[in-house]
Amino acid sequence: MIELNVALGERSYPILIGRGLLGDCEPLQRLAAGRQVAIVTDSNVATLHGPAIRQLLAGHAAALIEVVMPAGEAHKTFDSLNLIFDALLESRFDRGALLVAVGGGVVGDMAGFAAAVYQRGIDFVQVPTTLLAQVDSSVGGKTGINHPLGKNMIGAFHQPRLVLIDVDTLMTLPERELSAGLAEVIKHGAIADAAYFDGIERDMPALRARDARALIDAVARSCEIKASVVERDEREGGLRAILNFGHTFGHAIEAGLGYGEWLHGEAVGAGMVMAADLSHRLGLIDAGILKRLQSLVVAAGLPMRGPAWPSTRYVELMSVDKKAERGTPRFVLLERLGGARVQRVPDEPLLATLAACTSVSTSVTPSA
Amino acid sequence: MIELNVALGERSYPILIGRGLLGDCEPLQRLAAGRQVAIVTDSNVATLHGPAIRQLLAGHAAALIEVVMPAGEAHKTFDSLNLIFDALLESRFDRGALLVAVGGGVVGDMAGFAAAVYQRGIDFVQVPTTLLAQVDSSVGGKTGINHPLGKNMIGAFHQPRLVLIDVDTLMTLPERELSAGLAEVIKHGAIADAAYFDGIERDMPALRARDARALIDAVARSCEIKASVVERDEREGGLRAILNFGHTFGHAIEAGLGYGEWLHGEAVGAGMVMAADLSHRLGLIDAGILKRLQSLVVAAGLPMRGPAWPSTRYVELMSVDKKAERGTPRFVLLERLGGARVQRVPDEPLLATLAACTSVSTSVTPSA
Repeated sequence: MIELNVALGERSYPILIGRGLLGDCEPLQRLAAGRQVAIVTDSNVATLHGPAIRQLLAGHAAALIEVVMPAGEAHKTFDSLNLIFDALLESRFDRGALLVAVGGGVVGDMAGFAAAVYQRGIDFVQVPTTLLAQVDSSVGGKTGINHPLGKNMIGAFHQPRLVLIDVDTLMTLPERELSAGLAEVIKHGAIADAAYFDGIERDMPALRARDARALIDAVARSCEIKASVVERDEREGGLRAILNFGHTFGHAIEAGLGYGEWLHGEAVGAGMVMAADLSHRLGLIDAGILKRLQSLVVAAGLPMRGPAWPSTRYVELMSVDKKAERGTPRFVLLERLGGARVQRVPDEPLLATLAACTSVSTSVTPSA
Repeated sequence: MIELNVALGERSYPILIGRGLLGDCEPLQRLAAGRQVAIVTDSNVATLHGPAIRQLLAGHAAALIEVVMPAGEAHKTFDSLNLIFDALLESRFDRGALLVAVGGGVVGDMAGFAAAVYQRGIDFVQVPTTLLAQVDSSVGGKTGINHPLGKNMIGAFHQPRLVLIDVDTLMTLPERELSAGLAEVIKHGAIADAAYFDGIERDMPALRARDARALIDAVARSCEIKASVVERDEREGGLRAILNFGHTFGHAIEAGLGYGEWLHGEAVGAGMVMAADLSHRLGLIDAGILKRLQSLVVAAGLPMRGPAWPSTRYVELMSVDKKAERGTPRFVLLERLGGARVQRVPDEPLLATLAACTSVSTSVTPSA
């Protein structure tokens, strides 16, 4: 088992990464001891991992309930959130209660937001069961729900007390979701660590074959990078925005298609290629790096082009992005392999990128 | 103008108290300068004070919108909250936006919560226009909405950047709401400052006659007391709970009658008498202090008895109180005039208090 620490003063917490942790994890049992505990999961995950997590906590928690939400990004709404509030209040859970989020990013974001605002804040634990959640959303304390006019528009910064990552949960993950998680892995290499990017290129076949060692290494390095950025900028004052590489385009794709049509990681895959293309047009990176990123996105099984909408539609969708200032979107650009920055961009190269990186088909089948 | 400061490190903020501030307040204009600003108010307050606050901000804000919510505690729901989110998103308000809450506690709590979670947190200003909000809810950063199973169950701690208190707004306040605000004034004296309690007894006729000097003095002293408690316990780890004197009983009354039937301050008025009665039964205060509190509650125009429900109903309603631990409510008790503490209470004196302090009529007409 690998143990990392996210150093945020009194809000610091450990990340545990390994195999078989859902069956044997004393730190979680200790945290749950004698408390009211609510497992929050979704209809898919409840079947796969519900029994294991219940068995892990039974006999330790003073009271144990399970809240099962409808699965999917389309349900990342206040109505789903309210299912959690209803269950907690019906069971008289108080401010000392602990919420354990078991599932992908949607479950983690919603359960984390529920914990952030239930009785003005209770403790929670992240048990991410998708690669995307393991390498990205479970670490850093961003929580929230969607609004019809924008993704994650309603939310809070609320750090978990513990993140528990069992890579065995990835063995049952659908192929498409594994690829979606690899988008964030690629992202971490691209924005922060060229040597890691090299390693991802080398290990991509092993990662897609779900080699446990390759998965643990990638999850651990990605969590380290994410934790390091979050430690320096917990509330996204500046630096943290580089984690949104590929996300300004990606969010536009998700919002335009309707949440859930493409997976978040798929939109980020195409979005990273678009952001790298834009970086190249602005003279920040050479064509070789753009090509390597394109190839790695394709090798991960991800789409490398966005839907073929008019550029005005992309611009419109991007103007409500959270990084926007007064409706003008800012972009995370690569300044080299392993380094990124955030800036506004002139219209001309942006329109050229939108023309070059969008395709007639909106299928998620990679074009390679 | 009196200026107080709430000292919370990087979350510190000033409280400005005086007359005519809605017409002339340079600190608010400076804070709003060049920003997207949303005035949030309700249908009653918009008519009374909307024009003044719009005029104050026009020409300073880069963009100015007004969100008018339905008035009343019954509307302190997610649906009302969503009106704010819809308006902010439709106007493309970004993370640099400023929200200005103008109204009573319901508006302040909801607008504050909207600011706490819109794009994971934006700045806001409290402009309380009821006495209750001026002496209590606008200071301290508690925000939230109600749930059918409990009051303020969903919320956040989110400090305002500025609190602007213009006592001229109290001149149009309905009599009943003025009395409701006096409940919290009495509370501050009872739990924290015996000399202030003496002063409230002396000034009660002037306060009810809306003498501006008496109102400014009471608002300022109450804000000082509240700020001092909040400074020592921002997130209600312990001490801050004493501000809930009268509230465990009061919340039960509000929840049992349906929110909005009694005003919050009315429920707190009866709740304080019940809590003082309980304190007396437990031997903490003598009958003279109990009598003085009862008389002051009556002099303020507040009910001194709760509805005549069976004690089991009160106990049931109190078990979901946020101060409850595993369903066992804790009570804020007076240990002397000007001092309070929080503790659990045996059944016998609690049942005796419930029998002694509830009446057949649920009318809010004071029984004296």
